[in-house]
Amino acid sequence: MPALKRLIESRRFDLVITVLIIVNAITLGLETSQAAMAEWGSVLLFLDRVILAVFVVELLARFAVYRLAFFRDPWRIFDLVVVGIALFPATGNLSVLRALRILRVLRLVSMVPSLRRVVGGLVAALPGMGSIMLLLTLVFYVFSVMATKLFGAAFPEWFGTIASSAYSLFQIMTLESWSMGIVRPVMEVFPLAWLFFIPFIVCTTFTVLNLFIGIIVSAMQEEHDAEATAERAALQGEQEMILAEIRALREELRAMASERR
Amino acid sequence: MPALKRLIESRRFDLVITVLIIVNAITLGLETSQAAMAEWGSVLLFLDRVILAVFVVELLARFAVYRLAFFRDPWRIFDLVVVGIALFPATGNLSVLRALRILRVLRLVSMVPSLRRVVGGLVAALPGMGSIMLLLTLVFYVFSVMATKLFGAAFPEWFGTIASSAYSLFQIMTLESWSMGIVRPVMEVFPLAWLFFIPFIVCTTFTVLNLFIGIIVSAMQEEHDAEATAERAALQGEQEMILAEIRALREELRAMASERR
Amino acid sequence: MPALKRLIESRRFDLVITVLIIVNAITLGLETSQAAMAEWGSVLLFLDRVILAVFVVELLARFAVYRLAFFRDPWRIFDLVVVGIALFPATGNLSVLRALRILRVLRLVSMVPSLRRVVGGLVAALPGMGSIMLLLTLVFYVFSVMATKLFGAAFPEWFGTIASSAYSLFQIMTLESWSMGIVRPVMEVFPLAWLFFIPFIVCTTFTVLNLFIGIIVSAMQEEHDAEATAERAALQGEQEMILAEIRALREELRAMASERR
Amino acid sequence: MPALKRLIESRRFDLVITVLIIVNAITLGLETSQAAMAEWGSVLLFLDRVILAVFVVELLARFAVYRLAFFRDPWRIFDLVVVGIALFPATGNLSVLRALRILRVLRLVSMVPSLRRVVGGLVAALPGMGSIMLLLTLVFYVFSVMATKLFGAAFPEWFGTIASSAYSLFQIMTLESWSMGIVRPVMEVFPLAWLFFIPFIVCTTFTVLNLFIGIIVSAMQEEHDAEATAERAALQGEQEMILAEIRALREELRAMASERR
Repeated sequence: MPALKRLIESRRFDLVITVLIIVNAITLGLETSQAAMAEWGSVLLFLDRVILAVFVVELLARFAVYRLAFFRDPWRIFDLVVVGIALFPATGNLSVLRALRILRVLRLVSMVPSLRRVVGGLVAALPGMGSIMLLLTLVFYVFSVMATKLFGAAFPEWFGTIASSAYSLFQIMTLESWSMGIVRPVMEVFPLAWLFFIPFIVCTTFTVLNLFIGIIVSAMQEEHDAEATAERAALQGEQEMILAEIRALREELRAMASERR
Repeated sequence: MPALKRLIESRRFDLVITVLIIVNAITLGLETSQAAMAEWGSVLLFLDRVILAVFVVELLARFAVYRLAFFRDPWRIFDLVVVGIALFPATGNLSVLRALRILRVLRLVSMVPSLRRVVGGLVAALPGMGSIMLLLTLVFYVFSVMATKLFGAAFPEWFGTIASSAYSLFQIMTLESWSMGIVRPVMEVFPLAWLFFIPFIVCTTFTVLNLFIGIIVSAMQEEHDAEATAERAALQGEQEMILAEIRALREELRAMASERR
Repeated sequence: MPALKRLIESRRFDLVITVLIIVNAITLGLETSQAAMAEWGSVLLFLDRVILAVFVVELLARFAVYRLAFFRDPWRIFDLVVVGIALFPATGNLSVLRALRILRVLRLVSMVPSLRRVVGGLVAALPGMGSIMLLLTLVFYVFSVMATKLFGAAFPEWFGTIASSAYSLFQIMTLESWSMGIVRPVMEVFPLAWLFFIPFIVCTTFTVLNLFIGIIVSAMQEEHDAEATAERAALQGEQEMILAEIRALREELRAMASERR
Repeated sequence: MPALKRLIESRRFDLVITVLIIVNAITLGLETSQAAMAEWGSVLLFLDRVILAVFVVELLARFAVYRLAFFRDPWRIFDLVVVGIALFPATGNLSVLRALRILRVLRLVSMVPSLRRVVGGLVAALPGMGSIMLLLTLVFYVFSVMATKLFGAAFPEWFGTIASSAYSLFQIMTLESWSMGIVRPVMEVFPLAWLFFIPFIVCTTFTVLNLFIGIIVSAMQEEHDAEATAERAALQGEQEMILAEIRALREELRAMASERR
């Protein structure tokens, strides 16, 4: 077992897996081309199956070494899911799973440290967004219900159900064709509809921008904090030296005074 | 009365109200679905009426306890308005009020502290935006009057009145279909129309971006100020200790000198 | 003359002018409505002419008091231009000047201190943008010439001349209908056109964003500098007190030593 | 040779080249106008050829002086490429090279110091974006393969090949006509397509925004670092003076003590 541990923790092992992921990315990409499939179809499918087998063996080896600690690393669970997708039979209603096989290529993120750090940074920004995301969800729900009640009967395609209203409002929030495509036609039936949509656009745009402002400020604060702490430590270090010198001076002076008596 | 005060300030009471708001959000959402109304219509309407009654009793209880202090909390006035909407008869011209009942769900914001803080933060950013919003309103008014005079006769749908010009200019400011949808058709009649619209886009986009830059800078400044004050206090604290030590030293020296005479 | 100076520098005078600007804004707005013109047309035009006369007298008074110093304040030159527009005969080719009369309302900016400060801030950000604006102009020129040569023959409406190419590229930079409206049709004739447009979008978007990042950073730096200077001054002040104390101590010690000899 | 070096490093030489670039920009611009070509066609082409000759001689002179050091300055390589384009025969398949001649005007960037600094700043921001760009490329590849597999058969124009899927997803990322133009039509065939596109929009928009947040933060950090270092140096300088004073004081005290014995 220690030999297996050494193997899967070696840099060469990581390199081999990384190369296999890239090769698999290429084969999965070529599989979408009919010309490539006509020429090398069997080779591509064979390579795909071999690489999948290597990945399964790799994950089993990791599990054999780390046991339950395997599940503590979220990247391993991610690996498990994206490799596992290929093991389900992609038939009937599940044929969409065949398209999800390419997700396996995202394993590259867990193998390349710099990508891992970037994704880690993005994910770390999420919890700070919790409250504002909850607020946005609430606002979307309230506006979707209102839109469905107000415009659902006249525009069933856009506002027929809460789900379609939510989709239309998401489109409006991204400002895509909001006026020419949706609000102007709605205003031909309900001339005051702008009283609903313009506040919605202003509120959600302002909220989303504040979301990003929050992320900018906290990212900056973090970097600044680390640095300010180092700076203050340097200044305080010197101050403490000064204090120590003065105290030593006082001691000496007292010694002189007592000696003279 | 103190018993009533204890009750409405208890965490359990808040929890009950919060749960009722969520239940009401669901019933109001289901009311938009014809299938749900056909099946459980009477149950949903009954639940809605019961919850409304509870909210009315709750607000009366709060008013009985806090009296006029009730109106000092802006969240309570908000509660009053969104609950009060349901008490108006939603008939005839006021049938739009029926759609506004869902606003009641926004009471969740005043019940959940983290949401309350986020909304408080967003609202706190507004006063700092006052001048720039006034400027933007002025710019919109001036450009709307100009657009109405210049293009109103040829394009009555877009620039027929000041109100429709303001709406069209808002659409142009959000960059939605500004060129393909509006400015290119206008330029076919007035080839120099870009001299009006491109400066408008550049000015308003620049102003809005400066609005957000202002918010970013002040948000950052606030956080930084609090921290910088703490930092300086620590350094000054040590400096004062050094000063005190030196002064004590001088005192001792003087004592020694006078003793010797 | 000192009496005139006192008058035009009094707060009451500013207030009267401000009220007249607002009244004029309303009359100029109402002039766009045919209904309002039919009813009060002559009153509106009379008011407009009276207010214009007051403004002319006001500016003459200011000029009489300040003489050439009048032209040193850019706001006064602005006032002169926007009031002067109304004095030109708005006939024939100059009929567009009639629409520019509403610009007079922008005098409000020079009268209200908070608006004046906001506009001052926006204008102060311009010189720092000089180099990047020059770069953007250069990039637009180069891409416009290229687009005219490459696509001008096939799409004369969009890329027929350098001017129409520059307009189309501005539209593409704002991302309005860039793909569905312009690049997809172009790609049907020139399949590699994306090699021209996607780099253009990426470059200009990145440049414009850096423009705004520059403004954010310098706005922040300015605020931070003022504050950091104050902070450092406080710390240095104390350090100098410490130094003075120590030097005084050394002096005393030397005095003691020489006294003893 | 030293005479040649003095010449090409003189300010007058730079000025002459800069003027020639601007003249060339104008002639290349006029060449796109048929009216201008009909009138001064031969003059424009002659001027173009003369200026090209001057540029070739200039670059040869620079190479003669700097030898291999010539290739160490990336701006010189840029000059070489954009001047070299004009020397290839722009016939047949290479006729597109004729349009690229205008790139020569970008030499202005390498001649004007302020433009050079701006572009240098933009380019300096690129390495810090490396990881996030790699991540974005990976995400685009994975989503393109998925889109091709899922929607390629039904919408060959948008998602027929990986390349066209990548282009369509880039369009969707810029939010141009994403819903009305692409996702709504796709949803008529695949009602759950929003499960693919909305996460794509949210992920890529969030990633791109983080890219820019990263640039803002690092730009700010850089400026702040330089300043903080200067500030700390000033404070530390004084602290060291204080320390030196105290040490001198101790020395004197010791001297007094030993003298007395």
